[in-house]
Amino acid sequence: MEPLIYIINASSRKDTGITDDLARSLLWLRGPNLPRIECVTLEDGPNGISTARDSDDAAPAVLRFVEREAQKSEVGAFVIACFSDPGVHSARELTRKPIIGIGEAGIMAALSFGDRVGTIGVSKSSPAANERFTRRLGVQERVAGHLAIALDYGQLKDEGVVTDRLIEAGRRLRDEYAANVLVFAGAGMGRYVKAVQTAVSLPVVDPTQVAAGLAIAQFMQLHQYCVERFDAHNRS
Amino acid sequence: MEPLIYIINASSRKDTGITDDLARSLLWLRGPNLPRIECVTLEDGPNGISTARDSDDAAPAVLRFVEREAQKSEVGAFVIACFSDPGVHSARELTRKPIIGIGEAGIMAALSFGDRVGTIGVSKSSPAANERFTRRLGVQERVAGHLAIALDYGQLKDEGVVTDRLIEAGRRLRDEYAANVLVFAGAGMGRYVKAVQTAVSLPVVDPTQVAAGLAIAQFMQLHQYCVERFDAHNRS
Amino acid sequence: MEPLIYIINASSRKDTGITDDLARSLLWLRGPNLPRIECVTLEDGPNGISTARDSDDAAPAVLRFVEREAQKSEVGAFVIACFSDPGVHSARELTRKPIIGIGEAGIMAALSFGDRVGTIGVSKSSPAANERFTRRLGVQERVAGHLAIALDYGQLKDEGVVTDRLIEAGRRLRDEYAANVLVFAGAGMGRYVKAVQTAVSLPVVDPTQVAAGLAIAQFMQLHQYCVERFDAHNRS
Amino acid sequence: MEPLIYIINASSRKDTGITDDLARSLLWLRGPNLPRIECVTLEDGPNGISTARDSDDAAPAVLRFVEREAQKSEVGAFVIACFSDPGVHSARELTRKPIIGIGEAGIMAALSFGDRVGTIGVSKSSPAANERFTRRLGVQERVAGHLAIALDYGQLKDEGVVTDRLIEAGRRLRDEYAANVLVFAGAGMGRYVKAVQTAVSLPVVDPTQVAAGLAIAQFMQLHQYCVERFDAHNRS
Amino acid sequence: MEPLIYIINASSRKDTGITDDLARSLLWLRGPNLPRIECVTLEDGPNGISTARDSDDAAPAVLRFVEREAQKSEVGAFVIACFSDPGVHSARELTRKPIIGIGEAGIMAALSFGDRVGTIGVSKSSPAANERFTRRLGVQERVAGHLAIALDYGQLKDEGVVTDRLIEAGRRLRDEYAANVLVFAGAGMGRYVKAVQTAVSLPVVDPTQVAAGLAIAQFMQLHQYCVERFDAHNRS
Amino acid sequence: MEPLIYIINASSRKDTGITDDLARSLLWLRGPNLPRIECVTLEDGPNGISTARDSDDAAPAVLRFVEREAQKSEVGAFVIACFSDPGVHSARELTRKPIIGIGEAGIMAALSFGDRVGTIGVSKSSPAANERFTRRLGVQERVAGHLAIALDYGQLKDEGVVTDRLIEAGRRLRDEYAANVLVFAGAGMGRYVKAVQTAVSLPVVDPTQVAAGLAIAQFMQLHQYCVERFDAHNRS
Repeated sequence: MEPLIYIINASSRKDTGITDDLARSLLWLRGPNLPRIECVTLEDGPNGISTARDSDDAAPAVLRFVEREAQKSEVGAFVIACFSDPGVHSARELTRKPIIGIGEAGIMAALSFGDRVGTIGVSKSSPAANERFTRRLGVQERVAGHLAIALDYGQLKDEGVVTDRLIEAGRRLRDEYAANVLVFAGAGMGRYVKAVQTAVSLPVVDPTQVAAGLAIAQFMQLHQYCVERFDAHNRS
Repeated sequence: MEPLIYIINASSRKDTGITDDLARSLLWLRGPNLPRIECVTLEDGPNGISTARDSDDAAPAVLRFVEREAQKSEVGAFVIACFSDPGVHSARELTRKPIIGIGEAGIMAALSFGDRVGTIGVSKSSPAANERFTRRLGVQERVAGHLAIALDYGQLKDEGVVTDRLIEAGRRLRDEYAANVLVFAGAGMGRYVKAVQTAVSLPVVDPTQVAAGLAIAQFMQLHQYCVERFDAHNRS
Repeated sequence: MEPLIYIINASSRKDTGITDDLARSLLWLRGPNLPRIECVTLEDGPNGISTARDSDDAAPAVLRFVEREAQKSEVGAFVIACFSDPGVHSARELTRKPIIGIGEAGIMAALSFGDRVGTIGVSKSSPAANERFTRRLGVQERVAGHLAIALDYGQLKDEGVVTDRLIEAGRRLRDEYAANVLVFAGAGMGRYVKAVQTAVSLPVVDPTQVAAGLAIAQFMQLHQYCVERFDAHNRS
Repeated sequence: MEPLIYIINASSRKDTGITDDLARSLLWLRGPNLPRIECVTLEDGPNGISTARDSDDAAPAVLRFVEREAQKSEVGAFVIACFSDPGVHSARELTRKPIIGIGEAGIMAALSFGDRVGTIGVSKSSPAANERFTRRLGVQERVAGHLAIALDYGQLKDEGVVTDRLIEAGRRLRDEYAANVLVFAGAGMGRYVKAVQTAVSLPVVDPTQVAAGLAIAQFMQLHQYCVERFDAHNRS
Repeated sequence: MEPLIYIINASSRKDTGITDDLARSLLWLRGPNLPRIECVTLEDGPNGISTARDSDDAAPAVLRFVEREAQKSEVGAFVIACFSDPGVHSARELTRKPIIGIGEAGIMAALSFGDRVGTIGVSKSSPAANERFTRRLGVQERVAGHLAIALDYGQLKDEGVVTDRLIEAGRRLRDEYAANVLVFAGAGMGRYVKAVQTAVSLPVVDPTQVAAGLAIAQFMQLHQYCVERFDAHNRS
Repeated sequence: MEPLIYIINASSRKDTGITDDLARSLLWLRGPNLPRIECVTLEDGPNGISTARDSDDAAPAVLRFVEREAQKSEVGAFVIACFSDPGVHSARELTRKPIIGIGEAGIMAALSFGDRVGTIGVSKSSPAANERFTRRLGVQERVAGHLAIALDYGQLKDEGVVTDRLIEAGRRLRDEYAANVLVFAGAGMGRYVKAVQTAVSLPVVDPTQVAAGLAIAQFMQLHQYCVERFDAHNRS
């Protein structure tokens, strides 16, 4: 079986097209030796994940999926593509295959590009909730702030509106919060990276892409594809 | 010109073969749309980087290289492949192209795979120096500990000895320091990941590989290769 | 309707008698003006809560209960009697009535009796998981350590064995971890407080009792029972 | 002798009626099995406690009282009802009976009801002094801010003025400092809880009441009143 | 009047000769332009300062002294030569002349010579008390540990015994706690610096001397003695 | 040979007169038993130190100087008079003689005079860079903020302009950032201390002076000049 890495959209909601957006944004991550990226929707997840309760409701679905799929030898790693990281730490007790949450990985990766990270979310969330998240990560001192663009699902379909709001939030995080790197606090927003980065002049991180990059880098190390194939390559 | 990402070995020392080791360990990171990975040795760097002074001596060489190469349009990002991150923060004042230090990126990536990171170094270094490093990163609370295998350059050529020492250090970090993820605190050690991970049963991160993975992920976002090629792909 | 405060056992498992233990340990909290303490078992919760996954599985049940019961005017507050605080922060988004998790409240109350808290759990759990919990609370610097007595459900019925193990853990936390206050990291262990405190000579906190005490104190303030009844008392 | 818990007003000043206010606000804490709450004024304390020096001057008086009274078997616990906690840590070296400072206990209890605590003081005090206090507690990351209503003793007698000022401070802490729970940083203000909580729509904690609640909960555990009387109750 | 800086021994106990030891250890700090160093014993202080209560009892005496002496124009600064810094922060509310506590200043100065400070005390004190102190300073992450030599006043007169114990504690702090700088947590121990530093091979800081050095440096800046006299010097 | 302490200006730039300013500001630090203060300019240092790169370029020059001079027995200590502390930690690996960076020492000394330190720099620098610095020191919680007066070398010669700007920055740090002590984040600014302190009414620390004071205090302890000369003094 061809090895694969799962990118999990824990929301069962279909009309938002997030799973397709994820797949599209990760198309570049293909190579002759690389595992396949498989983006999936959890049918038993909640109908959208925008509140803290939605995230709590998503965790059991994530855990059921990981428990079942981790047993398959071709599955190399799991990326939970929900910024609140539902079930991520519990899932690590179910399998020793890598489990990556895009929240953790997105913030940590952003902190490899800059010092003070500003997070831009979609749904309105409390400052307290964002702080709990980054305090649990132990990186509170490096968080500049969080802003939400606060659009509903209908408005999210208008790419122009979304882009404008993201840029506005990014500029405020840069100017009022002294952020010098930004991360999108959500899944499926990779297509806005370039525009926001250009307009705000700060590195902008899409958490799913860096999480997928980390998952593959770690998978390749584990399977030592690199050296074996390098040697074959040199011999041929 | 074909886009490329530099992986910089800041030591001018040749006999250790570190630059070749870096290239070999990153061979998997190739794909139809991906930028080229170019591993270079800084001729004006210090002769080996094992002390704090060596790292201070490496920084000006790194900065000269970045200043010169950042002007070339085909250069997409720089990975400074020395765990002490010489010149990384200063380099970010010279260019807006991504500058990634494998120290920062390695620790941050490890913290996306586990909670408490143990670092395994080659040269003997003081606990105080390691703490200064992680305290500056603001992740001190998530560092389990640091151990060095303390081998000289001669011994480092014996892969069996190195592997044994790394495994021994990894087990101590797991059992005595409660680490649940490990990172190699040095460049060019990718070939030991599999053996150590297998023996210690914890995720083991090679910092250069995750740094390169992050550099490419970020590069692809910036250039939005993904979406354009996806659309081309769909049309064809 | 008579006002009441719910103490919620989120596990549906019956044979452990935890809900009865909770009720028994809180019997003292009765008074002429005090709300009723109502201990309930969540029928739709997981069958025992000992792993991280169990806790994730408990949260949706907790949220369903709070959502339904918070609408009743006689309900004054909710105490979630599971040390991992499943659903606590999400529940606060469903109602403005006080939601108290015995994990948070137990640790915070312990830190009102001593400086360095040692937590004693029942199930074996990772140091990393305990740290995530206290780091999220922001009190990591005041945590001495965590030890689990690691007994299964069968052994937990033997009070003598449990007492011995708790005392052993308490002494180790005092002597090896420099704890100067202890808290039981679980529900329904109030009956062991006196024996452990006597043997270890440190304050021992049962988290459910302090959580219930806080819930009532807060309830009374909100309803200003105190002053009104004081005036009535003075007039009579 | 009937067991009792002391609530200590460390100021000798009489005209403010604080000791009476304390007694009144704790009247609800009575029950058939509960120890008596005894509110006392320290005659040898300073004449009012509003400056840092007043607090330093209060500590020796508190320690003399605790030293003398802790020897009486009927005394179960001491609550030092001054928010700066004069003598609290030293008193714990004089006796093993619980010593609770309303500053520590009030802030810790508030952090069981919300994430970011705002403190509202009476006297003007420096931000630096408030930070020293919460930094010593190790909860600095969870403190939203501190505001003082800055009224003199004369104005404090006008409940309308006090209420207005408290509400104004509470709203600022909520809106400008992102506090989601408030605590009164002083003794004898229990009568303002309901009005402020109603107006500001955040939980408001009176530190003396939660401290008294904790003292009783801890006392009951120690004396295991609960179980013995429960059994008696069941037998009858 | 000749300007002077007070070094305050807050203990009234005479037989220990601490005030004389302080004076002797600061004799080097004399120069043509420097203020006089005046070491005083507080007659109304407690009889020895070894417990937390002693320190609480010392604060009011310190404050009375500062209040009275700060009014004299020739007094330039106050050094409170008790490592627990009794009254230091309150004293700063009584005068704008510099108030330096040897605890704060000693630890901060030590952290200018090394990364991880080990403190060596005379009296036995709890780890919790030492942590409260350094946590309030906000430097907890840089504290390696605390050890006490635990000698009574009689034994303290035997310099040989004291030296041996200090060296033993210093070696343990270096080897078991990874301290790389030491500070004596007490007044009047300057005469042991050389022996301990020689034996342990780490910088050893006497807190009174660095506090006095800081007091004079700050005094000279304030009075701009330096420039005026430099100009006079150049003219002559 | 007469003992001496080096004050190192790591910039080779001559026209700014910084080395002379340093010497002038330290003239007061002379006494019959004190070592000589020797202010030197590093000819092989960068031409001015205002950017992060300048600081990286200065470190190797500092290390060459320390390596060479530390071998001379008459040299007692080194003060690196550049606020970014180039080479300070590496230099400690080259010699056991005290190495003091004015950045570390200046901030630590300031925190012995007040709680919340505001730093006033000359060159414009990023908030992120300042935070990295103080986070590495582990005192981030006590930093109020940083402001730069942002003058070029020409404007720096106008003492009136510099004074006005420093006062303006000091007032903003006091009023908007709640600083209660200030430190100049640069070398050679001692002559502004008095004016700024008088205008802003907060303690103002010149980092070179406190660093020199600490260097001498530590030197005197090590050489035990104090006691020997005291005894001689008493005998004569």
